[in-house]
Amino acid sequence: MSHRVRIGMVGGGQGAFIGAVHRIALRMDDQFALVAGCFGRDPENTRKTGEELGIDPARCYDTWEQMIDQESRLPVADRIEAVSIVTPNHMHHRPATAALKAGFHVICDKPLCISMEEALDLQKITNETGKTFALTHNYSASPMVREARERVTSGKIGTVRKVYVEYLQGWLSEKLEESGQKQADWRTDPTRSGPVGALGDIGTHAHQLLEFITGDRLTSLYAILDTFVEGRALDDDDMILFKMSEGATGTLCSSQVCYGRENGLKIRIFGTRGALEWDQEHPNDLKVTEEDGAVKIIRTATSAAGEASASLTRTPAGHPEGYLEAFANIYHAFANQVRGKNSSLELPFPGIEDGLRGIQFINAALESNKENCWVDVSEGDN
Amino acid sequence: MSHRVRIGMVGGGQGAFIGAVHRIALRMDDQFALVAGCFGRDPENTRKTGEELGIDPARCYDTWEQMIDQESRLPVADRIEAVSIVTPNHMHHRPATAALKAGFHVICDKPLCISMEEALDLQKITNETGKTFALTHNYSASPMVREARERVTSGKIGTVRKVYVEYLQGWLSEKLEESGQKQADWRTDPTRSGPVGALGDIGTHAHQLLEFITGDRLTSLYAILDTFVEGRALDDDDMILFKMSEGATGTLCSSQVCYGRENGLKIRIFGTRGALEWDQEHPNDLKVTEEDGAVKIIRTATSAAGEASASLTRTPAGHPEGYLEAFANIYHAFANQVRGKNSSLELPFPGIEDGLRGIQFINAALESNKENCWVDVSEGDN
Amino acid sequence: MSHRVRIGMVGGGQGAFIGAVHRIALRMDDQFALVAGCFGRDPENTRKTGEELGIDPARCYDTWEQMIDQESRLPVADRIEAVSIVTPNHMHHRPATAALKAGFHVICDKPLCISMEEALDLQKITNETGKTFALTHNYSASPMVREARERVTSGKIGTVRKVYVEYLQGWLSEKLEESGQKQADWRTDPTRSGPVGALGDIGTHAHQLLEFITGDRLTSLYAILDTFVEGRALDDDDMILFKMSEGATGTLCSSQVCYGRENGLKIRIFGTRGALEWDQEHPNDLKVTEEDGAVKIIRTATSAAGEASASLTRTPAGHPEGYLEAFANIYHAFANQVRGKNSSLELPFPGIEDGLRGIQFINAALESNKENCWVDVSEGDN
Amino acid sequence: MSHRVRIGMVGGGQGAFIGAVHRIALRMDDQFALVAGCFGRDPENTRKTGEELGIDPARCYDTWEQMIDQESRLPVADRIEAVSIVTPNHMHHRPATAALKAGFHVICDKPLCISMEEALDLQKITNETGKTFALTHNYSASPMVREARERVTSGKIGTVRKVYVEYLQGWLSEKLEESGQKQADWRTDPTRSGPVGALGDIGTHAHQLLEFITGDRLTSLYAILDTFVEGRALDDDDMILFKMSEGATGTLCSSQVCYGRENGLKIRIFGTRGALEWDQEHPNDLKVTEEDGAVKIIRTATSAAGEASASLTRTPAGHPEGYLEAFANIYHAFANQVRGKNSSLELPFPGIEDGLRGIQFINAALESNKENCWVDVSEGDN
Repeated sequence: MSHRVRIGMVGGGQGAFIGAVHRIALRMDDQFALVAGCFGRDPENTRKTGEELGIDPARCYDTWEQMIDQESRLPVADRIEAVSIVTPNHMHHRPATAALKAGFHVICDKPLCISMEEALDLQKITNETGKTFALTHNYSASPMVREARERVTSGKIGTVRKVYVEYLQGWLSEKLEESGQKQADWRTDPTRSGPVGALGDIGTHAHQLLEFITGDRLTSLYAILDTFVEGRALDDDDMILFKMSEGATGTLCSSQVCYGRENGLKIRIFGTRGALEWDQEHPNDLKVTEEDGAVKIIRTATSAAGEASASLTRTPAGHPEGYLEAFANIYHAFANQVRGKNSSLELPFPGIEDGLRGIQFINAALESNKENCWVDVSEGDN
Repeated sequence: MSHRVRIGMVGGGQGAFIGAVHRIALRMDDQFALVAGCFGRDPENTRKTGEELGIDPARCYDTWEQMIDQESRLPVADRIEAVSIVTPNHMHHRPATAALKAGFHVICDKPLCISMEEALDLQKITNETGKTFALTHNYSASPMVREARERVTSGKIGTVRKVYVEYLQGWLSEKLEESGQKQADWRTDPTRSGPVGALGDIGTHAHQLLEFITGDRLTSLYAILDTFVEGRALDDDDMILFKMSEGATGTLCSSQVCYGRENGLKIRIFGTRGALEWDQEHPNDLKVTEEDGAVKIIRTATSAAGEASASLTRTPAGHPEGYLEAFANIYHAFANQVRGKNSSLELPFPGIEDGLRGIQFINAALESNKENCWVDVSEGDN
Repeated sequence: MSHRVRIGMVGGGQGAFIGAVHRIALRMDDQFALVAGCFGRDPENTRKTGEELGIDPARCYDTWEQMIDQESRLPVADRIEAVSIVTPNHMHHRPATAALKAGFHVICDKPLCISMEEALDLQKITNETGKTFALTHNYSASPMVREARERVTSGKIGTVRKVYVEYLQGWLSEKLEESGQKQADWRTDPTRSGPVGALGDIGTHAHQLLEFITGDRLTSLYAILDTFVEGRALDDDDMILFKMSEGATGTLCSSQVCYGRENGLKIRIFGTRGALEWDQEHPNDLKVTEEDGAVKIIRTATSAAGEASASLTRTPAGHPEGYLEAFANIYHAFANQVRGKNSSLELPFPGIEDGLRGIQFINAALESNKENCWVDVSEGDN
Repeated sequence: MSHRVRIGMVGGGQGAFIGAVHRIALRMDDQFALVAGCFGRDPENTRKTGEELGIDPARCYDTWEQMIDQESRLPVADRIEAVSIVTPNHMHHRPATAALKAGFHVICDKPLCISMEEALDLQKITNETGKTFALTHNYSASPMVREARERVTSGKIGTVRKVYVEYLQGWLSEKLEESGQKQADWRTDPTRSGPVGALGDIGTHAHQLLEFITGDRLTSLYAILDTFVEGRALDDDDMILFKMSEGATGTLCSSQVCYGRENGLKIRIFGTRGALEWDQEHPNDLKVTEEDGAVKIIRTATSAAGEASASLTRTPAGHPEGYLEAFANIYHAFANQVRGKNSSLELPFPGIEDGLRGIQFINAALESNKENCWVDVSEGDN
């Protein structure tokens, strides 16, 4: 087989949500060996997590600095090749830059980081080191999202006019952070989440998805960032109007106070000759409107779906794949990239540019909300 | 039986769409006798339409002025009691005011008229004459909309936080007005449609629906009115952010260039304890989220639906009613009102206030779009 | 206009369900004048119903025999031309045959009657008199059913292999007839409903729908007729396996004890090159599988739907029509037939042959259930 | 951690479908180490597959007999503890019995085997050896199936009256086996598939699902097994009527010639007080009818779902899990059982009894089809 990529993890100790997801994703296609980790600030948690995962105790490190330092000293054939970063947002930039500088490839949870300075620095270091940097915008690796992208970018729906994208959740409808719930706790804390709440946590997914599928850029926006739950320090509800470079306009809504909504990431795109709709809660369905105006449901792994999506599935039509499989697609493509071969998944996985775009998007929204005006989403070094 | 209300119609000659709808609606429950009409500017069309409808040729009038004048001279027991106005927007105000002044009740298509001056004048005359004025915001008479209103206004979903309402169509994706298609023709012509296109035609339905269901007022808004089809004189796409008097916020999108969309009026309301969703293309389903967070589908005429909706249906559960039946509910309630008895439908049908609200909404959106700022939706005489 | 067909009604007095439906259906397109009636066995009910409907008291008859007799004596230009029969099943044959013999056209609720003798007699008299006989299998007049029929009979899905049709309701899950509920009362009473319960009430709809859409005949069947509610005299649940003349096979299930189900008539047809699915509770959607295997949703009145369905709708795409409109399509076509012109609806409405087929189907199912074997559904005079 | 269970695989070489699924399932939760295998009859395939999987070449065996023999000779701490059998149906019994006798636990694909003799023998040996035998009826490990089972067996829908279960596919609509397609090839070949085609391949899933959810037994049936594709040696379409021990009745349809259908396993259960519906193509939704008659959608991992389903998910609400995750649930529970601890998943995974039930079901259907009569599904040693 292709050798399993040796990887170390920063974050994801017992009690975390996304760390476990990353580990399932890296196991799914058997492309990795998780051989090292610093799973949290508490060495005891790291030790227990490492034991649970069957990792050599000698490679369960008290700090991520230690991990990077000591792994670097191991023989090339033994040391990790890549680092997976699954910590809260404020703790992405430092381990990522350190890992890159030490010669490791990096796969990092989103959003990229918590400031433009960090983002530009990461971009610079990624480019200088030439290492692979992957950002786990997992939805972009869902087969039907890829099918959507193929259809839009190849002109099947004509010129895009309207995009409605939303990411609605309800789990922060009450002040869950007061209960000590770990996910709510850091996501509503500016010191760990950064200057935005819902916008960074889920709005950036919506933004990345719309640019990924359309292959176009959101160039300016008008944003209202709101906080509905009293005493919460960050936005829990966002409404954004936007314009894209080729003339399309649309709305982007992200909210965590939509009672009862689970994980409602949904995008609808209308062009001059057709339309598309995708809803991540039913990810195997892509609703396509072709020129006759009727809605056709293209399903994962069917012959009605194209090559692009087929390569991202593991099972025949009618065997639903979901969130974890899309996540695993990112990891699989990352492994291929790390091993220096063209990805058998042929996935242009989201990387440092997507991360930078996300921070540009967040910053523009923050400025728009503050200044109450339309703001350009810069492409450059603002 | 209760006597059939004698009614005359202005507009709705051969080739029109909405006139035929009004006539089916007034026939459905056998509450009216259509005994007079001026069905268009062309007397020949009126004559033919009248013949088709079996109306006494003597009561098929060349002009609506004639109809009002001559009907007024007939014996009380013979003359019409009410006038139905189904002309393009610019031709609502004059026949409506004339009819009211002549002592007739009025039922009129939406939007109410094409300017604030007309709207305030109509309000004044309606109040002065004490006649009944109904506006056919038909969606508000759909049983499940009534069920939604009951649930929201009685507090079942707690305090409303978010409202997403949209009305998306695709039929004007191309320049249909150039083909001579009658519906497209007047709707995109400022002299007949008024200062707005999609916003008046469908955006006002969305606005009325959200205020009707929530029992709350949209107090300020930020609007972008766009025209996607080159050379079109009026907006064919609108995006609006809004705030309501009790603190809720939301988006209202109306568009006629969403390729393939038929008649997509859809509203979602999220409160502090529950949520609701209604889609007029599947009008017999109300999706309700109760405190357990699960979506429950309340269906027309079932025991899970309340009294309010039950009175608006004609058939048992599972026998789908739709657009025409909701329209007929408005007419039925109007008949009851005209006959001076409490409506057996107990429907607070939309009237002059809803019409005025619609014009206030349109004007605020026009100003916001022009000035690029948030604008209050006045309650008063602006 | 074409003159309104003068019609008299048998049954449908206050408290009845289907009578009111027939009256809405005959009003919908303004093709009829309801000028006479015997609305029940109780003359007082007939008098009140007639008054409610604005019918001349002189033409509200104490018995249906009187109605037929006395109407026959009126001048041709005044007397009724047709009779609508909306009584329980056992009271179809006698008024229908009398009406036909008196020279009136007949439109009758389903099932046709309660025995083969009655059915054959009705067929014979219909043929002898040359009058029009319509049977209100309303679902066959739903636009998307017509679209389905066009597609299947023109070969678009290839040769039909499998048909799954079901009609599931839950309203008789408990012994509702004991509460005095009128609909439950007669439907579970062999003296009025005939030898079958659910099978006649709803199973015949399913049977007619499958033969109507496929244009093929159910030739043999194996049936289990069950009664789940203790003490009920007729079947409330049926399961049938069947074979069709061209080789297709399938299942037909009708039940009135499926808790919570409203009016679940649903058919799925699979051919060698495509498939179709229609659900009467969402009648504006026809799910079509074309050769690429994807499901496409063809919607009423869209350009993706063909001519046949377009002629059966009153409103543009996206304006839902339902049960009452389909019913009205039957009445409209009946009116055209009565007036002797080709139907503008071009609807081959269900008639005496469909009625006879229904009785043959019932009889075959009864025999199969009794003999525990497959039984041919005769075409002839069995 | 709990040690990873050492497992060897029989079957599943390059080109196979279900072998890859089993391997993903065993990797998902990191409960296994796949350390040995005989992946096919061709040693070269085994060698390549083993290399791809990173298995020690010394433990890639030319025959399964070798694997069982040589693994038995390894030190206890090294040798495999369990065998996974993913071969065609005719090749289950021999390796399974050999593995059990050698002291290995077994997890085997369904159906159990191809004859009653084999089934009873397997049951006997399983009981004698006291080893764990799991059968991968994966659908029974889907969280919402577990939720359904809890609800039905705890009486939430009252007494079950009706069950409609179906498993419809379309992939064998044409004679795919002639193209050399590997999956079609063996499934339509009696020497490898056994005496039934669709019935064994998918009908047994439907049967197991209905017994699993209801906790009741299918006691008698009437079956029609058909072959629609000319020249095919086994059934590709089945229709079964059945009765259950507590009085419920229903239909079970399995077909592989339903054009366009992917993997349509769907079950509907109606009780005296409620109902349930589950569709494996949308596995995260359980449609529940409670006493008010409305359909409520219970979703995986939400608070509206109970404990039983929660333990079978890996991600929060709204993150769709699917086919592979359900499969992994079986493997996870098997691992727990092998390690001798109570399953943290508390999953009563399907085992030898389910396998035997499946063969009893197949045999009864074969007899019914041949004799054209109802046949009891024996509980005993028929």
